[in-house]
Amino acid sequence: MVTVALAQINPVVGDINGNTRRIQEAMRRADDLGAQVVVVPELAVTGYPPDDLLLKASFIEANLEALGQVASSSGDALAVFGFVDHKDGCLFNAAAVCRRGQVVGVYHKHLLPNYGVFDERRYFEPGQDHLLIDTPEAALSVSVCEDAWSEDGPVVQQGLAGAQIVININASPYDKNKLDERTAMLADRARRAGASIVYVNTVGGQDELVFDGSSIVISPDGEVVARLEQFEEDFALVDVPLGHRDGMGATGPGPPVRRVRVALPPAPSGGARGVVTKALSVEAEIYRALCLGLADYVHKNGFKKVVVGLSGGIDSALTAVIAVDALGTDCVLGVSMPSVYTSSDSRGDADALALALGIQTIEVPIKHIQDAYVEALESAFGQTQEGLAEENLQARARGNLLMAISNRYGHLVIATGNKSEMACGYATLYGDMAGGFALLKDVFKTEVYALSHYRNSISTVIPENILTKAPSAELRPDQKDEDSLPAYSVLDPILEAYIEGEVGVADIVELGYERDVIERVITLVDRAEYKRRQAPPGPKVTGKAFGRDRRLPITNQWREGPDEDLPARATGVGGED
Amino acid sequence: MVTVALAQINPVVGDINGNTRRIQEAMRRADDLGAQVVVVPELAVTGYPPDDLLLKASFIEANLEALGQVASSSGDALAVFGFVDHKDGCLFNAAAVCRRGQVVGVYHKHLLPNYGVFDERRYFEPGQDHLLIDTPEAALSVSVCEDAWSEDGPVVQQGLAGAQIVININASPYDKNKLDERTAMLADRARRAGASIVYVNTVGGQDELVFDGSSIVISPDGEVVARLEQFEEDFALVDVPLGHRDGMGATGPGPPVRRVRVALPPAPSGGARGVVTKALSVEAEIYRALCLGLADYVHKNGFKKVVVGLSGGIDSALTAVIAVDALGTDCVLGVSMPSVYTSSDSRGDADALALALGIQTIEVPIKHIQDAYVEALESAFGQTQEGLAEENLQARARGNLLMAISNRYGHLVIATGNKSEMACGYATLYGDMAGGFALLKDVFKTEVYALSHYRNSISTVIPENILTKAPSAELRPDQKDEDSLPAYSVLDPILEAYIEGEVGVADIVELGYERDVIERVITLVDRAEYKRRQAPPGPKVTGKAFGRDRRLPITNQWREGPDEDLPARATGVGGED
Repeated sequence: MVTVALAQINPVVGDINGNTRRIQEAMRRADDLGAQVVVVPELAVTGYPPDDLLLKASFIEANLEALGQVASSSGDALAVFGFVDHKDGCLFNAAAVCRRGQVVGVYHKHLLPNYGVFDERRYFEPGQDHLLIDTPEAALSVSVCEDAWSEDGPVVQQGLAGAQIVININASPYDKNKLDERTAMLADRARRAGASIVYVNTVGGQDELVFDGSSIVISPDGEVVARLEQFEEDFALVDVPLGHRDGMGATGPGPPVRRVRVALPPAPSGGARGVVTKALSVEAEIYRALCLGLADYVHKNGFKKVVVGLSGGIDSALTAVIAVDALGTDCVLGVSMPSVYTSSDSRGDADALALALGIQTIEVPIKHIQDAYVEALESAFGQTQEGLAEENLQARARGNLLMAISNRYGHLVIATGNKSEMACGYATLYGDMAGGFALLKDVFKTEVYALSHYRNSISTVIPENILTKAPSAELRPDQKDEDSLPAYSVLDPILEAYIEGEVGVADIVELGYERDVIERVITLVDRAEYKRRQAPPGPKVTGKAFGRDRRLPITNQWREGPDEDLPARATGVGGED
Repeated sequence: MVTVALAQINPVVGDINGNTRRIQEAMRRADDLGAQVVVVPELAVTGYPPDDLLLKASFIEANLEALGQVASSSGDALAVFGFVDHKDGCLFNAAAVCRRGQVVGVYHKHLLPNYGVFDERRYFEPGQDHLLIDTPEAALSVSVCEDAWSEDGPVVQQGLAGAQIVININASPYDKNKLDERTAMLADRARRAGASIVYVNTVGGQDELVFDGSSIVISPDGEVVARLEQFEEDFALVDVPLGHRDGMGATGPGPPVRRVRVALPPAPSGGARGVVTKALSVEAEIYRALCLGLADYVHKNGFKKVVVGLSGGIDSALTAVIAVDALGTDCVLGVSMPSVYTSSDSRGDADALALALGIQTIEVPIKHIQDAYVEALESAFGQTQEGLAEENLQARARGNLLMAISNRYGHLVIATGNKSEMACGYATLYGDMAGGFALLKDVFKTEVYALSHYRNSISTVIPENILTKAPSAELRPDQKDEDSLPAYSVLDPILEAYIEGEVGVADIVELGYERDVIERVITLVDRAEYKRRQAPPGPKVTGKAFGRDRRLPITNQWREGPDEDLPARATGVGGED
């Protein structure tokens, strides 16, 4: 048994000084509580992912200075934390092991993820050896994130080489399947390694990513010994059981093993039984992920308040509710911007929502702005048929008004579009897509309803009528989403299969949908790539989010399904461009 | 001597059927001319870069079917072309070697670039062996792009293993230093390998990238034997001299060598002396790169015409001129959108430009739109001080008008902002940044002038006054760019050092600029990251372009220079947000 402190902290990308303080605080706290070991997440010094900051020599240098500062302030507990190592002109995603003012060992991550949202091969070289830390109590080893995801990879190799506790530091982003996936994977690795795994994850929002924390200790039998909070900073002392193997002197297959010998402080009296927090429901998880993603984007970027356009529809309603839960009532300004097509129902629903939330609202009608545009364009448009251009002008007038309010008061504009719209291009570029953060960008419309019901189950804030009426963009008389798109109950599963599943038409037909509907949807998705490229970032909550997770060319003549010539995209599809 | 046809073609990403035809045409043409070998660029079957299309099983399958089609139509000339190979669940960036209906060999690229604009490790596994093609005339080998860039890498290894001609197929994107860099690198490799190098590059625009062609044959002594056109499709037969080594049976260090034996058709009578095209000047190169990038973005995406806002300033002037040169006079619509701050000079300059170009123009004044916005916001803004919000509303009204014209007529909106503005955030999101393609996004303001003078040196189209007056956004009375930014002659070298050089403040001070100016510029660049994330794509012409080439977090508290708290960014800097 070794008593390990899991420090689930929220570093800020680029804030090396602040992150240094955060790591030092965790180490002090561990020492105060008598922990024998303290573990801090992957790349805690730089924040994750630092992206091309890693190409700046000054940044790498500051990170190495921070390593020195943290090491020199290290106390009795053996401290493990992530930093960027620099050797022979190469960078390594590294874990430092420090104690009593010294760096006693450094491990370089072996497996560098370069898929999905990850680009680690762009920066790092893979490590070539293992680090075994022989203490009088137990043999420990250190690994980083992806090192655990290979069945016979570094974590298992370290167990076979004699480690009784494998420490695994992480910056593992959330998606809605991640917790179960991770737990099952770690249980398997612990059993294969014959060792306990101490898995410490980052928590916090960083642009498109949300790190969920959920740090976990797994016994050599694959049992969950402890799990920390989801979506919150957390800190816990856990007595970690030792693996089956003796460790000292044992060797296994795989890369060479470096060994360091180090003492640990005595175990604290009384022990530290780990607490296993109850896992949230899927809806609660996603809701919390969105709250954390938004709050961190706002605060880490120095904003105080946000502004949300309230249409009376469900997307803007859920956006406003999440903003209030994430930031507080006083930090959310609602703006209603009715047009001649805005129903009195919508106005009433928006008002009722604002009242239920207690947020400040202002109303800015757009009729005169729209009239001025139409008049200005009269000679340019001549006798051509009214349509998409006029519809989009309304959406863009609203986008401009929100940005003007942002410019005047410094509030961040939150865009309210959902993933179904983003997928199909059923959104106006520079209109309802305008803003600094697109909160629901990775939430399908059906999930928007599910999240709204979930939130109302805690306390009713979203008016019933918003939940039950048919979705409409209200850009022309009697417009309904389902005039242009399949029902969301059909659309969303097709989108999920195509986007997350990367499958073709034939496979989606097998799911039970009609071929022509599928082909229409896929065409919409493919054609909207240019819009998504100009969309604000928003938090990833699914297996594949638009943004860094899905990188498709705009200029792209690949078509699933039947060959057809591609008409110019600016002509758009009914109701949006 | 072997007579090789270099087929410098322009594939379209995703257009597997079209690309198959393009490759087959090149092969037929080579056979018609009696070539012994024909070489087509890297990933010609899929286009480059296919990005996440490579994750779609249906796409990989279609590409393999295309391989079969091309192979089965191969004739007498030995044909080398790029495709995606799929073996044991892994993908390879591959070169196929075909003759008389058969695939006679396949080579997998060894070195996979994963820096700058490249992400090949995201998709591909590296090849592990070499392919030597023994013919009665000579020993040939095949390699792909990056394989040439390592001093002792695959191209040199192949020479040492006995190849007398190393074929290197490419999709190498243009930047303004690339031609000299490539030529020097290839000369060095040829000498080290003791072999000729046949370097065949793609030509064409693909979103942010422009492939310049400039295919080249280098003798074993490092001399340029032939060079094809820059920025155009081209096709040439070249008698390629043989390397010094005998080849048959020789072995060198490095990975294992597979050998295939194949016949070649007889050399054509009369021979084929290579032509070395004259290299363009830097300005001509960049100008041609912009023309090709624009033309291909427009045509490959199915657009017929473009629309450009004409302000009377130099950026919109150069944009319109390039559009006319790239697409033709009839394909460019100019829109002038004067406000109360638009000087009569500017109106006159815009008119004179349109007249010189002979393009259709329309005028849409924005005064009433601006008035309607200000009036609508009256109660929201109350007694607060007029400023940035009102300035941006003008830019955004213009952006909306251009998008409305795009929606109505299907024209592509070309944004006119330059790299200096994009760098400093001196541009309005959804305003002058609006559009489908940002033509000058990677062209510094000083270079905008240089390109304008270059173009006028061919024939005068840009009115003198546009070239000589002080740059202004004309969003408030008597506004000048230099009220908010350092002189461009100071700004641009600082930007170049910071962005392309990735150097810190101290290094830029050593270039002779003032520390406080440098710090101010760097702060502007860092704060504008969120705007650039929502910018349209534009063609890369420098060593580091904004976009896929430079990937920085938005949420990022790293600051070069003195520590300071970061105020909310929506408050912006004078004159723009």
